Amino acid sequence: MHPYKQMVSFGDCDPAGIAFYPNTFRWMDAAFHDFLRDFGGHDQICEGLGAIGIGITNANASFRSPMRDGDTLNVRVTIGTPGQKSFEVSYKGFVDTRLVFEGTETRVLFMNAPHGISAGNIDQLLAILASTGAPSQDRE
Amino acid sequence: MHPYKQMVSFGDCDPAGIAFYPNTFRWMDAAFHDFLRDFGGHDQICEGLGAIGIGITNANASFRSPMRDGDTLNVRVTIGTPGQKSFEVSYKGFVDTRLVFEGTETRVLFMNAPHGISAGNIDQLLAILASTGAPSQDRE
Amino acid sequence: MHPYKQMVSFGDCDPAGIAFYPNTFRWMDAAFHDFLRDFGGHDQICEGLGAIGIGITNANASFRSPMRDGDTLNVRVTIGTPGQKSFEVSYKGFVDTRLVFEGTETRVLFMNAPHGISAGNIDQLLAILASTGAPSQDRE
Amino acid sequence: MHPYKQMVSFGDCDPAGIAFYPNTFRWMDAAFHDFLRDFGGHDQICEGLGAIGIGITNANASFRSPMRDGDTLNVRVTIGTPGQKSFEVSYKGFVDTRLVFEGTETRVLFMNAPHGISAGNIDQLLAILASTGAPSQDRE
Repeated sequence: MHPYKQMVSFGDCDPAGIAFYPNTFRWMDAAFHDFLRDFGGHDQICEGLGAIGIGITNANASFRSPMRDGDTLNVRVTIGTPGQKSFEVSYKGFVDTRLVFEGTETRVLFMNAPHGISAGNIDQLLAILASTGAPSQDRE
Repeated sequence: MHPYKQMVSFGDCDPAGIAFYPNTFRWMDAAFHDFLRDFGGHDQICEGLGAIGIGITNANASFRSPMRDGDTLNVRVTIGTPGQKSFEVSYKGFVDTRLVFEGTETRVLFMNAPHGISAGNIDQLLAILASTGAPSQDRE
Repeated sequence: MHPYKQMVSFGDCDPAGIAFYPNTFRWMDAAFHDFLRDFGGHDQICEGLGAIGIGITNANASFRSPMRDGDTLNVRVTIGTPGQKSFEVSYKGFVDTRLVFEGTETRVLFMNAPHGISAGNIDQLLAILASTGAPSQDRE
Repeated sequence: MHPYKQMVSFGDCDPAGIAFYPNTFRWMDAAFHDFLRDFGGHDQICEGLGAIGIGITNANASFRSPMRDGDTLNVRVTIGTPGQKSFEVSYKGFVDTRLVFEGTETRVLFMNAPHGISAGNIDQLLAILASTGAPSQDRE
């Protein structure tokens, strides 16, 4: 479980005064990319695997409680059980102890293929993400 | 089925050159609000119902094909079968005839309640959204 | 003067109910990229010039009148007098006949150089942008 | 000088792999609102002054060096010399010791007026912002 922190600001909020919901997905994606930094970051991981990028095929979020200007959002990232060519990334967002959202992304590894781009084998990627990673630095 | 049009621009795209996925949810939400304009728009509808706003409890999207700078996205909005205090809004996004995403939002009607905010009865709202609406003007 | 049209939506607005000001710059940039489409689009133009991209060194906007959910924004793009290695792009945003913003970007042409990236000669680029361009299609 | 920290993420970057420039203004605005928290935050300050909000009439930024995925941006906020009914807020953004942008916003205090909204007297607001403020807590 990797923690990611983001302060919710005035400009993230809509006329109802609560965080505009697509921003939740921005923060989920940012938390995932922050998680990847423990293993070298998105670009370095993909280069090592000969992949184009770690893409996404589905995203889902349930909004449990509103986020407002000044809230400090903590996002916990968990890598879920893999499918054959995709894996799930689960997110829980908290403000203090209050659960504000739960989300899931389905991710794939995009590879160059003879006729375009295809979803590649994810075994190596998952092995990397399950490793200890670099000692987590204070990145704040 | 209400059509909504949006050109995908350079700045909507990520380093992989494809639309950053949270933007899909921005466009779904914009398509919903554009749909509401046929019935007076979000604020006028809510005022008529004594509601605070039309909120969201869940959002989901499957990304079928990438969108890029210069693509003209067409989003079709459909109001789905209602639950007791929520209803689904379904979206299909196309670039020409190519399906680029399918999504669903679960929406509720937020009302002031004695002890905070609660999800209110949606019968009146759904009756409005099922009406013919104002003659759709050319809003582009 | 190239026109660009964008509907302002609920999610573009902040808790004060008016468009969050950084979105103005998103729309200026989108208007510029839309302008480039008359000449093949950003990527094709840069490829023809052996350039990496049309970058930006300064952006400025004055906000004359608020934009709200449902406003149809029209942005007029004008290429201004060039400097030695940069040129100005001017923008005026209108909702109907109401001026809502005026803005300027300073743009450069990024080229690969022996020791990194440098701002290249813009004569060819400006010649392209001053040409008649492809017959403007109805892109809405 | 108030420091504000923000990690630049993949999704903040454009197809050129560098932070999309309108995000710079989002971070300037977020840094300003974070600055306001030392004095109670935007809403509480405005309530105390009988004001609607602290608005903006002009924004400007010069982009000195690109920001990329994984960069930790530090923004320094300075309140500048006031005009009669407006004041300047200056920003400098750094990644480590590298200057990445310099920006300025012109801000006003929106008040309800007999015939709409007007820019109010800013003396009280500036006195608040020049006070010591609450002991700055670790908000990260």
